[in-house]
Amino acid sequence: MRDSYHESLESVVTDLVRMSEMVRDSVSGATRALLEADLALAEDVISADAKIDELHDELESRCFTLLARQAPVAGELRTVVAALRMDSDLARMGDLAAHVAKIARMRYPLKAVPEGLVPNISLMARVSEDMVVTAGRSLRERNAHDAGKMAENDEEIDELRRSQFRLMLAPDWPYGVEAAVDVSLLGRYYERIADHAVLMASRVIYIITGLLPAGEKWPVA
Amino acid sequence: MRDSYHESLESVVTDLVRMSEMVRDSVSGATRALLEADLALAEDVISADAKIDELHDELESRCFTLLARQAPVAGELRTVVAALRMDSDLARMGDLAAHVAKIARMRYPLKAVPEGLVPNISLMARVSEDMVVTAGRSLRERNAHDAGKMAENDEEIDELRRSQFRLMLAPDWPYGVEAAVDVSLLGRYYERIADHAVLMASRVIYIITGLLPAGEKWPVA
Repeated sequence: MRDSYHESLESVVTDLVRMSEMVRDSVSGATRALLEADLALAEDVISADAKIDELHDELESRCFTLLARQAPVAGELRTVVAALRMDSDLARMGDLAAHVAKIARMRYPLKAVPEGLVPNISLMARVSEDMVVTAGRSLRERNAHDAGKMAENDEEIDELRRSQFRLMLAPDWPYGVEAAVDVSLLGRYYERIADHAVLMASRVIYIITGLLPAGEKWPVA
Repeated sequence: MRDSYHESLESVVTDLVRMSEMVRDSVSGATRALLEADLALAEDVISADAKIDELHDELESRCFTLLARQAPVAGELRTVVAALRMDSDLARMGDLAAHVAKIARMRYPLKAVPEGLVPNISLMARVSEDMVVTAGRSLRERNAHDAGKMAENDEEIDELRRSQFRLMLAPDWPYGVEAAVDVSLLGRYYERIADHAVLMASRVIYIITGLLPAGEKWPVA
């Protein structure tokens, strides 16, 4: 009984890693769809979100079954609880990638991101995509060290967001209101993807050590 | 043992209701700070968020203890799991109210919301605040009927958000880029507060019926 319990838990973790790969593909696809005004790709990302949500529901139900079937012991309880939260984090990242793709679709055949903001948005997208990859790998390898370094990436995202605002609010912003509205929301979506990646990493650290990073409380999202 | 277990669970629910009242106060205070450019009130809301986060952490730890101490039976397991999620929803709503207050603070002594958008933002704020109240009351009264009606409010929020975009993207938008950026983000924050209120209500329905509303899957956020 406990062996099969342990196996079920292990397979939940494996599927969470797989889910992080699906999310990475969505973030990457959404960014390309956005920067290249690729409608077909935007539609693909939007459809893929339903598959991520399905996997979310299935994993959640498996976690509930694990909780209901027997009282998990300390480390296993930690893993189930962390798995439930990572499952929500990943589903939310998938939603946010779909939001990016929807902005690409809405502006097609035009590009939503004006030329002067392409470097900023590209970099924000790349850093947040890398953070998804790192979070997934930290979980797969149970690597608390990598997970702990994600806070640095998060500072990079914050700095990119600040420079985004500086560009938009400069008196000589040439791209008008619509572009500013789009960029504000796109920046917010990538920022939230990065936030959830940090949360996922903090949950990996919690599984491994039973502790939250650097005396922090469990962050909320 | 089971009696004290039941009492602990009941006190978690009572504190979640109290937390929903703190969040309601934050949403209401943030909105007033925003519309009246009230700096002291904005600071109050931002400080209150730390208290909401503290209550979140404490409730989360009590839920984990309940899960760890014994395998809860069906209805009680549902309640603990739903409580963990409502706890996250409410903490997130508190964060979002603080984000609104931070925009008020950033623009002080000016008002962030331009006059032409005051009716739209006021209404969005009122509907989302009402949704927080309804979600809290549904939990207190275990009222699945009220909880089930929240989807209507959510449609109202979506419609307000659409008309907000129409106003900002009209060719004669007179308020410039900064106001558009602020309103885009404010609209997003209120929309997310409303989303989390709907999620909280769906969790109330889940506690009462064991079912998700109208054949829906458990929504993600």
